[in-house]
Amino acid sequence: MASPALLIIDDSERSASLLYATRFRAGDPFVFAEIRGRRHLLVTDLEVDRARAESAVDAVHRLSELEKRARPSARGQAPTLIDAVDAFLRSQGVRALVVPGTLGVEHADALRAKGYRLEVRREPFFPARHIKTPGELHLIERAQRATEDVVAAAIAILRHAKVRGGVLHDRDGAITSERLRGFVEHELLDRGYRGLNTIIAGGRQATDPHCTGHGPLHADQAIILDVFPRSIETGYWADMTRTVVKGRASEALKRMYNAVVDAQAAAFAAIRDGIDGKAVHQAVQDVFKDRGFETRRHRGHMEGFFHGTGHGVGLEIHETPRFGAHPSPIRAGMVMTVEPGLYYPRWGGVRLEDLVVVTKTGCRNLTRFAKQLEL
Amino acid sequence: MASPALLIIDDSERSASLLYATRFRAGDPFVFAEIRGRRHLLVTDLEVDRARAESAVDAVHRLSELEKRARPSARGQAPTLIDAVDAFLRSQGVRALVVPGTLGVEHADALRAKGYRLEVRREPFFPARHIKTPGELHLIERAQRATEDVVAAAIAILRHAKVRGGVLHDRDGAITSERLRGFVEHELLDRGYRGLNTIIAGGRQATDPHCTGHGPLHADQAIILDVFPRSIETGYWADMTRTVVKGRASEALKRMYNAVVDAQAAAFAAIRDGIDGKAVHQAVQDVFKDRGFETRRHRGHMEGFFHGTGHGVGLEIHETPRFGAHPSPIRAGMVMTVEPGLYYPRWGGVRLEDLVVVTKTGCRNLTRFAKQLEL
Repeated sequence: MASPALLIIDDSERSASLLYATRFRAGDPFVFAEIRGRRHLLVTDLEVDRARAESAVDAVHRLSELEKRARPSARGQAPTLIDAVDAFLRSQGVRALVVPGTLGVEHADALRAKGYRLEVRREPFFPARHIKTPGELHLIERAQRATEDVVAAAIAILRHAKVRGGVLHDRDGAITSERLRGFVEHELLDRGYRGLNTIIAGGRQATDPHCTGHGPLHADQAIILDVFPRSIETGYWADMTRTVVKGRASEALKRMYNAVVDAQAAAFAAIRDGIDGKAVHQAVQDVFKDRGFETRRHRGHMEGFFHGTGHGVGLEIHETPRFGAHPSPIRAGMVMTVEPGLYYPRWGGVRLEDLVVVTKTGCRNLTRFAKQLEL
Repeated sequence: MASPALLIIDDSERSASLLYATRFRAGDPFVFAEIRGRRHLLVTDLEVDRARAESAVDAVHRLSELEKRARPSARGQAPTLIDAVDAFLRSQGVRALVVPGTLGVEHADALRAKGYRLEVRREPFFPARHIKTPGELHLIERAQRATEDVVAAAIAILRHAKVRGGVLHDRDGAITSERLRGFVEHELLDRGYRGLNTIIAGGRQATDPHCTGHGPLHADQAIILDVFPRSIETGYWADMTRTVVKGRASEALKRMYNAVVDAQAAAFAAIRDGIDGKAVHQAVQDVFKDRGFETRRHRGHMEGFFHGTGHGVGLEIHETPRFGAHPSPIRAGMVMTVEPGLYYPRWGGVRLEDLVVVTKTGCRNLTRFAKQLEL
C-alpha cells in the first residue's frame, strides 16, 4: 500500500531543514525519511553511534545493512546510496516521496528510474521551521546578545582610536578591517559563536554591500560593521549591522543615516502577522524616495538602495521569507532582519540592521543596541 | 546551432566546483556557465561589482537585465531564476547542458520543461580540480604548516599538564576537550584559518571517530587530535590527526599504535599514479588483519577499523577520490589523506593522519609532524 513520505538526502551543515528535522549535525551526507509520522535516519556505520545519541528521530538504520538487501541498478556493481534508500523505502511500503527542491538531480533521477513519484516542495519544506518556538527564540536572542557584546567591544576600539594622517590607530598600529575582523571573530569564538565573512568595511568599500573590507580604516568616513555569527553548539544565527564614523560625518552622510533610521522605523511600523514582505520593502523604498535618495546604475555601479530589506534568520542565516521585491507572506513567530541601507560612492555607505520577531499586531525588536553615527 | 555547455547553479561556499571554476566566493546562489570555452557568471546587482573585481571568468552578467528578456513559465508571474538563465542560454544558442549531480531537482525539472537536454555529470565535474597545480599545492602545504604549528602548541599543553586525580590540569584548571578545542581554533584564526568541528577526544570518546569530544581529558588514555582547518582567504583545506597519551599507554594501546603506524606505512608504499584507491585501503586492512585486529560489530557498536583510509583534500575537505571499499582511480597530483585508525572501547582509539601528494612513482608526504604516542 503506497503512502507518501518526506525524504531529504543532504548533509546537515548545508541543509537547515535536515538539521531542523533531525537535530543531527554531520558534514557528510545522510538520509532522513518521515513515514506515517515516524522519523528515520539512514547513516553509515561511522555515524550510527553518534546518530543514536544525538539525533531527535525515532529510528536509526545502518546503510551498510540496507546495502545487503539492495537491488543494484547496475548488475555486478556495488549498491549505490539510492539502492540502499530504495531497499529501506520498499520495506516501508513507500512509493511516493515529497522531496526538497535542493535534492540533487542525480538522486532524483535515480529515484524516478526506480519508479518513485517525486513531489518537489520548495522552501519552506517544513513550514513550522520558520515559525520560531519560544525555545528557538531564546537561542536566537542569546546569539544576538553575544553579537551585541562583541560589536560593542569593536566599536569601543574605533571610539578610542587615535587619528594619524587620517588613519585610525591603536597601540598596535593602524586599525585595519582585517585586524578588527580578527578581533570580532576571536571574541565571538570565546562566546561559542563562529563569525563567517564578518563585514568591517569603510569609505568607498562600504558602498559595495557585500565587500568584507580590507586595509586601514579612516577617520571621518562611514564604517559598516555587519556581524552574523552562528552558535557552534546549536546552529542558530544572529545578525546585526551598525554604521559609525570616528570623527565628523559629512552633512550628506548624516542625511543618509537619518533616512536609513527613518526607513527602518517605517519597516518596523509596517511589520505584523499577515502582511506581505513586499509591502515592508515598499515602505522602506518610499522613505528613500521621499528624501530624494534615488536608486540607479551610475557609471556601471549600482547606487542608492539595491538589496532586500530583510530575510528570515534561524538555522540558516538567509532563510525564507523575505522583505523584498517579490510577494512573501509574513507570519507571527518569524524572526527577520530589517536592514535598509544607502550606498553612494561619493558619500559612503550606511546600513542599519536589527533582528525582530513578528507578532500578531506588530514586531518585537530583539536588538538592544543603540544607533549613533558619530563616535 | 545547439552547443553543449557546462552549467552550475549553487553558492560557492557549498560547491567547490563552482569556487574552482570562478574563484568567486559568495554564500548566496549564483550561476556559472561555460560555453564554447568562454566562462560566464550570472549574478544579482548586489554582487556584480565584487564579481567583476574578484572572479576569474570572462564575462559577468546581471540577472536583473536577463529577467527583462525572460519568458516567465507562469503567465503574469515574476520571472524565476531559471527564466533568467533560459534568456541567457537562448541568447548563446545553447540547448544541451552538462550539470553536476548536485543541481537541485527543482532547477533541473524547470530546465527540462523548457526543453534543455541535461547530461548529469558526477564528481569529478572538473577532473582537473583533483589534480593540484604547483600553486594549489603551495596553498595546501601552507595550510598544513599552519595546522602543524597549532597541533604542536596543543600537544605542548598536554605534555606540560599536571595530573590531579587522573585528570590533566594547567594553571587555568582541568584541561577539557572544549577548552583545548577553543585554544586550537583561536590559534588557527590567528593564522588565517577556520577550524570546523575540530576533534579533541579522549578515552572512550575517541573510539567513536566522529565524536568531537567533551569534558576533562585524562592521563594514561589515548587522546585523538584531528585538526582540519580551511584558509579564510583561499578556501583550501589541510587535515591531520595525531594520537597521544599523557603518561603511560597500556600494552594494548601500544600494539594498536604500532599497527596503525605500520598500516599507514603500507598505504604510503602502495600509493602511486594509476593505482586503485581500493588497493590502498586493502593494504591497510591487511596489516590490521595480520596483527589480529578484527573489525566487527560488538554489543551494538563497531570496533576495529571501520572508516575509509583516506580522501582527497583541496577546496573540499572530503573530495574524490577515496581510499576505500569502492574502486577509485588515483592519479599523480592528487592530494589525499592517509588516516588508518583502530577503535576498541576497552582500549581506546588511535588514528594517525598525514596528507600526501601522489607522484608518478609513489607519494610525497606533505606532513612533517612526528608520531609519538607517549608524552
